[in-house]
Amino acid sequence: MSKVQDSAPVADTAPESSTARGRPARGRRAGPGRPEGTSNVRDQILDAAELEFANLGYAGTSLRNVADRAEVTQALISYYFGSKHGLFEEVFLRRGRKIADERMERLEALRRGPAPPPVRDIVYAFLMPALAMRETEGGRTFMRLQARLHTEPPEISYKLRNEAYDASTRIFAAALKEALPHLSERDVYWRMTLMIGAYLYAFSDTHRLEELAPGICNPGDPDEIITEISSFVSAGMLAPVPEPARAPGRRKRG
Amino acid sequence: MSKVQDSAPVADTAPESSTARGRPARGRRAGPGRPEGTSNVRDQILDAAELEFANLGYAGTSLRNVADRAEVTQALISYYFGSKHGLFEEVFLRRGRKIADERMERLEALRRGPAPPPVRDIVYAFLMPALAMRETEGGRTFMRLQARLHTEPPEISYKLRNEAYDASTRIFAAALKEALPHLSERDVYWRMTLMIGAYLYAFSDTHRLEELAPGICNPGDPDEIITEISSFVSAGMLAPVPEPARAPGRRKRG
Repeated sequence: MSKVQDSAPVADTAPESSTARGRPARGRRAGPGRPEGTSNVRDQILDAAELEFANLGYAGTSLRNVADRAEVTQALISYYFGSKHGLFEEVFLRRGRKIADERMERLEALRRGPAPPPVRDIVYAFLMPALAMRETEGGRTFMRLQARLHTEPPEISYKLRNEAYDASTRIFAAALKEALPHLSERDVYWRMTLMIGAYLYAFSDTHRLEELAPGICNPGDPDEIITEISSFVSAGMLAPVPEPARAPGRRKRG
Repeated sequence: MSKVQDSAPVADTAPESSTARGRPARGRRAGPGRPEGTSNVRDQILDAAELEFANLGYAGTSLRNVADRAEVTQALISYYFGSKHGLFEEVFLRRGRKIADERMERLEALRRGPAPPPVRDIVYAFLMPALAMRETEGGRTFMRLQARLHTEPPEISYKLRNEAYDASTRIFAAALKEALPHLSERDVYWRMTLMIGAYLYAFSDTHRLEELAPGICNPGDPDEIITEISSFVSAGMLAPVPEPARAPGRRKRG
């Protein structure tokens, strides 16, 4: 078990997670009878849908694919989730809310400390819950789905993203603003957004690093990821007030 | 016309762009007869496909949709591009190669200067071609498609991404390594990857910023984008050699 994981237990806070780890173990399923009750079937559908949405995107996923993968009827999916969009909503919020809750708990813990939390610790509190989530099997799929969600058309993604994350992200922005009083609100929100872009990309298995630097970087190692990203992002947060960009060669604004 | 655009003309280097702007103007089409010759039809198909792939992802896009949007037959698409994957390849490489070429030209220009280029100028040379591309209508669609590509399954995306970008990205990594001799190759490649994640997210119209900070940030303003991102990313690149991450509260490694 890695050092990073030790320091980052994922709280099982989502009310809909009825099993200890949020997902029924495949090995425990006893065939088509499914004696473990409806909540397991529900999670089973959500797991199957998570994988389909992550692989094929929203438009490419059909309830039939999900039904086949989950080994249930489409009628059962409709019963639980209404529509494809209803299903997607539950898939997204199941883990998205868990990440947001865990971020808030970590920030609260920092605030109970003796001094106002420094930037690096706030960054760490923001990043760790998603990284810890990624260390679980379904969580890894979710990170891919989430990276994808950010490129889905607005009507599919925006409301959900807002519902899961906006409240906590705004509270983090306020904490960063407090730690960086010389920055404008605009700068703080830009830097938050760039941090989100960097972590979504680094955490979502794009395999870009292994391609570019085979044998040099190991994005499978959570200690390496958090070390590299928290160093980069913290420095970005701590950058001086940005000066208007200039073309190289021109030392002053034209 | 913005200052940023002035300093960043997008060179029309892709051999397949036969029209001055790479795309036939909609207004100039004279109906189903299309008197402007085959190269316009080809671009028209590529434009239509770009939009479909950007909106629906690879799996969600069908040649029929593309044919409908481009107002051509599926047979013509097959004639030009073979398969859906062949079409996707051309859509991606058309602009991807243009961005890579423009990056290389900017880096070469920096290297012809009197001193080794500083980190901030290298970062700027990397980011500007994609930002300038985004300021064109089709280029904006392409940025969305590209952000999406990074979350598509490997068999669709990896080869293409490598073909368009690997050579230039490696040369940029080498230039950064030269400017940051205290960093390991691992650190440099990680920071390149985090820069890529940050820019893909900031440039691809996720609208995250407008949601989080309405009226405060304006991601539609290219000057604002390049100012904020180059400040953040340059500071991230210039961060000290990263120390292994620690849980907040522990000042030394446990």
